[in-house]
Amino acid sequence: MRARVSSGTRRTPAPSLPQINGAPHARHEIILGVDPSVRGTGFGIIRLAKPHPVVLVQGTIHCPAGWERSRCLARIAQELRDTLRKHKATVCVIEGLFYAQNLQTAIIMGEARGASLVSVAEAGLEIFEIAPRKVKQAIVGYGGAQKLAVAKMVQRMLHLPEPPEPDAADALALALAFAQESSRYTFAAPKKI
Amino acid sequence: MRARVSSGTRRTPAPSLPQINGAPHARHEIILGVDPSVRGTGFGIIRLAKPHPVVLVQGTIHCPAGWERSRCLARIAQELRDTLRKHKATVCVIEGLFYAQNLQTAIIMGEARGASLVSVAEAGLEIFEIAPRKVKQAIVGYGGAQKLAVAKMVQRMLHLPEPPEPDAADALALALAFAQESSRYTFAAPKKI
Repeated sequence: MRARVSSGTRRTPAPSLPQINGAPHARHEIILGVDPSVRGTGFGIIRLAKPHPVVLVQGTIHCPAGWERSRCLARIAQELRDTLRKHKATVCVIEGLFYAQNLQTAIIMGEARGASLVSVAEAGLEIFEIAPRKVKQAIVGYGGAQKLAVAKMVQRMLHLPEPPEPDAADALALALAFAQESSRYTFAAPKKI
Repeated sequence: MRARVSSGTRRTPAPSLPQINGAPHARHEIILGVDPSVRGTGFGIIRLAKPHPVVLVQGTIHCPAGWERSRCLARIAQELRDTLRKHKATVCVIEGLFYAQNLQTAIIMGEARGASLVSVAEAGLEIFEIAPRKVKQAIVGYGGAQKLAVAKMVQRMLHLPEPPEPDAADALALALAFAQESSRYTFAAPKKI
């Protein structure tokens, strides 16, 4: 599966999102995905539409290595706040339980999440978590998929001219995975946080 | 040392803060200490003064266990923002490297830190970290001091009528430790973040 997606030679049809009418969370049509990290927070907002969802905005909030961490956190919060002022998403999806190398890394990743979540919560969005493996499973069909495979599939699902930057691709993948999860009745609904 | 402080029977003079003129960071006279956690973020602002520093405000931002985490984070950011609007601190001190039970706990503690740091950074304060052991060492004279011992010594140093709530006491201890650290030339200055 990974080879198929990342080789780019064999064409497979882009997966279409299932019908969402009447499903849980069906009211959410504008979905923000966020992949927070101090130096490069990916974000993307999609609007559910036919024949395929469209990207309203996507990007990466870069913070130079020389910046103090607190300055990065303020930048992340500000950029997300500005983005949500322009594009009125009603729900946000963020990664659930994930791996970190050690406690220090986990705390620093948590700080970036906290900075992101403040802006999102203050903008009134509902916030859900989906585990990274479930996102990959939903997008690529394989929980251990590599970043490039995710980016390429995101590109195809959203009919983008080129693959998004890796962090933005992860954010868009979260939004797409939420749309899929919401479209069917499932025992493992995304966790609200 | 611990017994001396927590027994409350033997009187020892409250330690006075050393002279701060001419020392590094001497320009900071209004110091915010923050001890972030999702359910109970302690904070305290002190103003350096003679004969002893005075508390401008202190408290704990409580969030009920039933609240979603993101709601707590928004509350923490909002309360600190409001507090800094009323009391113009110029520097903030937060715990440095600390212990967490596991990665999940570390991420969640990190989220509370991120929410706090966004408000503090957006209010323009400089932000420093001091390790918990160094705070206890500075306040109680013993790096392994217990919370109650810290709270009692904070009470005495600030001439408070009663010991602050534990989280607020930790926050005030951070501010006091910063004042002490700043008052002398040291090879282990607080780390700016």
